[in-house]
Amino acid sequence: MITLASDFGTPYPAAMKGVLCQRTDARLVDVAHDFPRQDVRAAAFWLREVLPYFPPATHLVVIDPGVGTDRNALVVRAGEHTLVGPDNGVLLPTARRLAGDADPETYVVDETRLEPVEPAGAETDASSAAVLQSATPGSGPASATFHGRDVFAPAAAAVHEAGLEALDDLEWLDPLADDPVDCRLPAATLEDGDDGTRAVGEVLVVDDFGNVITNVPGGFLSDHDRIVANEETVPVGETFAAVPTGDRLATVGSHGYVELDVNQGRGDEAFGLEAGDHVCLASIP
Amino acid sequence: MITLASDFGTPYPAAMKGVLCQRTDARLVDVAHDFPRQDVRAAAFWLREVLPYFPPATHLVVIDPGVGTDRNALVVRAGEHTLVGPDNGVLLPTARRLAGDADPETYVVDETRLEPVEPAGAETDASSAAVLQSATPGSGPASATFHGRDVFAPAAAAVHEAGLEALDDLEWLDPLADDPVDCRLPAATLEDGDDGTRAVGEVLVVDDFGNVITNVPGGFLSDHDRIVANEETVPVGETFAAVPTGDRLATVGSHGYVELDVNQGRGDEAFGLEAGDHVCLASIP
Amino acid sequence: MITLASDFGTPYPAAMKGVLCQRTDARLVDVAHDFPRQDVRAAAFWLREVLPYFPPATHLVVIDPGVGTDRNALVVRAGEHTLVGPDNGVLLPTARRLAGDADPETYVVDETRLEPVEPAGAETDASSAAVLQSATPGSGPASATFHGRDVFAPAAAAVHEAGLEALDDLEWLDPLADDPVDCRLPAATLEDGDDGTRAVGEVLVVDDFGNVITNVPGGFLSDHDRIVANEETVPVGETFAAVPTGDRLATVGSHGYVELDVNQGRGDEAFGLEAGDHVCLASIP
Repeated sequence: MITLASDFGTPYPAAMKGVLCQRTDARLVDVAHDFPRQDVRAAAFWLREVLPYFPPATHLVVIDPGVGTDRNALVVRAGEHTLVGPDNGVLLPTARRLAGDADPETYVVDETRLEPVEPAGAETDASSAAVLQSATPGSGPASATFHGRDVFAPAAAAVHEAGLEALDDLEWLDPLADDPVDCRLPAATLEDGDDGTRAVGEVLVVDDFGNVITNVPGGFLSDHDRIVANEETVPVGETFAAVPTGDRLATVGSHGYVELDVNQGRGDEAFGLEAGDHVCLASIP
Repeated sequence: MITLASDFGTPYPAAMKGVLCQRTDARLVDVAHDFPRQDVRAAAFWLREVLPYFPPATHLVVIDPGVGTDRNALVVRAGEHTLVGPDNGVLLPTARRLAGDADPETYVVDETRLEPVEPAGAETDASSAAVLQSATPGSGPASATFHGRDVFAPAAAAVHEAGLEALDDLEWLDPLADDPVDCRLPAATLEDGDDGTRAVGEVLVVDDFGNVITNVPGGFLSDHDRIVANEETVPVGETFAAVPTGDRLATVGSHGYVELDVNQGRGDEAFGLEAGDHVCLASIP
Repeated sequence: MITLASDFGTPYPAAMKGVLCQRTDARLVDVAHDFPRQDVRAAAFWLREVLPYFPPATHLVVIDPGVGTDRNALVVRAGEHTLVGPDNGVLLPTARRLAGDADPETYVVDETRLEPVEPAGAETDASSAAVLQSATPGSGPASATFHGRDVFAPAAAAVHEAGLEALDDLEWLDPLADDPVDCRLPAATLEDGDDGTRAVGEVLVVDDFGNVITNVPGGFLSDHDRIVANEETVPVGETFAAVPTGDRLATVGSHGYVELDVNQGRGDEAFGLEAGDHVCLASIP
């Protein structure tokens, strides 16, 4: 199985699927192609939360603001899973989680040794230019702006076909000498004060429902009926329906973090919060 | 085959797909994940119109504004199809249609007896909190806010693996004692008057093209060249192209209902109508 | 394998998938269902760029502003691929590319001889009306407004099951007597002047990133560090990252054409350009 995740919208993911179908019969499952554009941290969070629910698979991840630069293309073995994507940190939180107690093993792709991607049929009036333009010394015949199609999809297909145990034998893969670029999701700080506990953190992401997902572990809400969130008193509920429709609440989301939500409404609008914003939660004595 | 429908956007459906792939090799087909948020009636309409085109399958449906409350999780057998989703009416119009002359058979899921969903790898700083928070007496280890992943997907996978004939043997399924919550799509009223026929109804949904789908059966348009729709005279056309580009028309849509459309434009904007709005159509003598 | 492309949004593509799954076990791969509404040229461009990356397949394409008129439904054999869609030009650029040196072979579908599509279960209060309304002499039992479900999906399933070599034997397919409706993507003009070279062209499409894809072949940028694009001087970069974040650049996109982009931003907004707009690029001596 190969899963696909990107910030491509459409129809670029279809070109990746075409390349994958050329080279493997693996089942393809879309994770998402509308991750916030070029937002490595948001994708890193979502992938860490979603990919562990899959059976062992190859995960193709292309959130790649540095496409065409000399950033590496990586293959990361993490537990029984393999991740393929750019060396910008987007793979690391997921890799650490999937690897469990072990360390992820990281390889760098030698793009010049991958089998080049060739579309079927005649050339268009322009179709050779993408290749010509990027034929700089040492680079392969990939385009400079679509490594999802020309580098990562071929690498994912080849990794899937080879299998987890054979990564060391692939001649186009070398162990990464240095540490990969990392992306660490910020941790909240818990402080005990005279008048109770306080959590200082931030908004990790806002989901499509408008739920504001903070980085404060859900345990903070235990034994509280109400908290103060950024100076406003908010009831704590186990479910959205604990409060009337349209009302605000704090709850433990499905990822285990404190969420600031509205029952059948948008928490981001009600609380005036977006990804990266500062959040201060305080217990009420 | 398992189809998936939700109002989740992305990437939450991917977590459901991961759970399904853990537990079954069934083919997965997305119906839609952008149904109007928490709008049971709109989803009930679309599913009733779309799912009957599929071969016998298990249909996983998660439009669930009451997630985490004590609303039941249902499995409904309807003809050769099985529907899995919350007990809020969203499954019923489809179930009645698929069951044909027979009655749908409705079961309730005992969540505490489903095999719990376990993500792979290490825990995050928060990942056990979702489970702890909802570990109220009598509840299973599901999160309180994501039953699509923790209840409905496992139930759909298990139902698919067991097969239609084995539903009575599944120990985590009990026949529903009471009637399920229903959702009946409103019917239009036809009135014969001195000056012709009049249909009083409402807008069921607006589709992505902006076509206004009413609940007036298409037969109302038979033998008419023009009708009056909410006091405006509109030509009747068999196809969009029966009128010039940008012009309004009334037509029989692919569901069999009268639609108020614009050729290569948006009917909802031209007619000023949205889902739930009152519609009065009158024949012209 | 059958790929699906449309401008339907959701959930209409699911009805096509249901029909396909009723009639074939072929693998289904979505290309895109959010192509610009009823924009034949944009879809023709994207399909020509994306479909050649797939292995031999049947490609179902429904961008069909003339649905329900007497425009033909086509099956086009192009190399090892088969295209199924309306006779409005949307298939032609892809067919020419996939056919390579050969000519595409074009067939017209006799809709009255296709096996009719029947949904499972009971009728709704309106479900027979769509069929009745369109039962004009010589037409089959298809709805007048959803040929994707009622004509093109059945045709694609049947073509896939028959195989490339059997198209001549299918009794519901006849060779197209006349030329199909064409859609030719405009070519840019290159002019040599006293002060350098000038390319006069237009914007073919804007992608989801906001990249402005022109019809000027990428070779125009060779050996230039800067060009003048519509009177503004713009640096030429091989990759987005060749300029600072937020800055404009001209580059060769993955399709081989000159693109006007912004590094990690939207080129369409920065340049004030949309599909169809005039573009004049000039070299700087």
